[in-house]
Amino acid sequence: MPDFELHPQLAADTVPVATWTLCEVLLLTDANYPWLVLVPARTGLRDFHDLSPDDMVRAGREISRASEALMELFAPDKINVAALGNMVPQLHIHVVARFTDDAAWPSPIWGVAPAKPYAPDALDARLADLRRVFG
Amino acid sequence: MPDFELHPQLAADTVPVATWTLCEVLLLTDANYPWLVLVPARTGLRDFHDLSPDDMVRAGREISRASEALMELFAPDKINVAALGNMVPQLHIHVVARFTDDAAWPSPIWGVAPAKPYAPDALDARLADLRRVFG
Repeated sequence: MPDFELHPQLAADTVPVATWTLCEVLLLTDANYPWLVLVPARTGLRDFHDLSPDDMVRAGREISRASEALMELFAPDKINVAALGNMVPQLHIHVVARFTDDAAWPSPIWGVAPAKPYAPDALDARLADLRRVFG
Repeated sequence: MPDFELHPQLAADTVPVATWTLCEVLLLTDANYPWLVLVPARTGLRDFHDLSPDDMVRAGREISRASEALMELFAPDKINVAALGNMVPQLHIHVVARFTDDAAWPSPIWGVAPAKPYAPDALDARLADLRRVFG
């Protein structure tokens, strides 16, 4: 997929964690929540239903893989999965570990608490944990 | 699936539109947005990754079918897809038609504008339109 380019807003808000069959896996740099963003590395996709049938199967598999990694690492109370994209028009799928005592519970996370930067050590540790679980 | 029962909160907030291979298709009765809710008719599911691999393929297909129906009927600016479930623990997938002039744009819809009841005629017309497009 030589033409695929990550949207600059997503690049600015995240750090890369892994490259899977379909998706670039990114960590959104808001320490309020363990928050992954999966971006199918295909050009011109905007909505979930823009995925081809085969890519939709891959997307389901990769959402599960991301969710299960978050469950294993953080034992959250809930996983939230969402493809919204009202602000950034490149298809991206949020996979977020939620806790009953997190900054937005029980609301969805968007627009509730200001983003909280990771301390550099904490970011390195989180990336290392995620990459280890992703294998 | 004789044991499947729709969660009472989902039953209270929606009207049934169709029964598909995997999901019960419901219209959420908030006239602010054309808002479908897909509930996989399986017992004991909470998160998207609880779906079996086969059901995940079905879910992708049915999310697409719902999204494309909303596109055809309402020509929205964006489709939002989300499995949140922080308040209602039965897996359910929101598929929502969004417009740049709707009550919450560009925010996600949850918790922004108070639900707006449908006028009875408007609800009947919307259900008829959806059922016609679903075929």
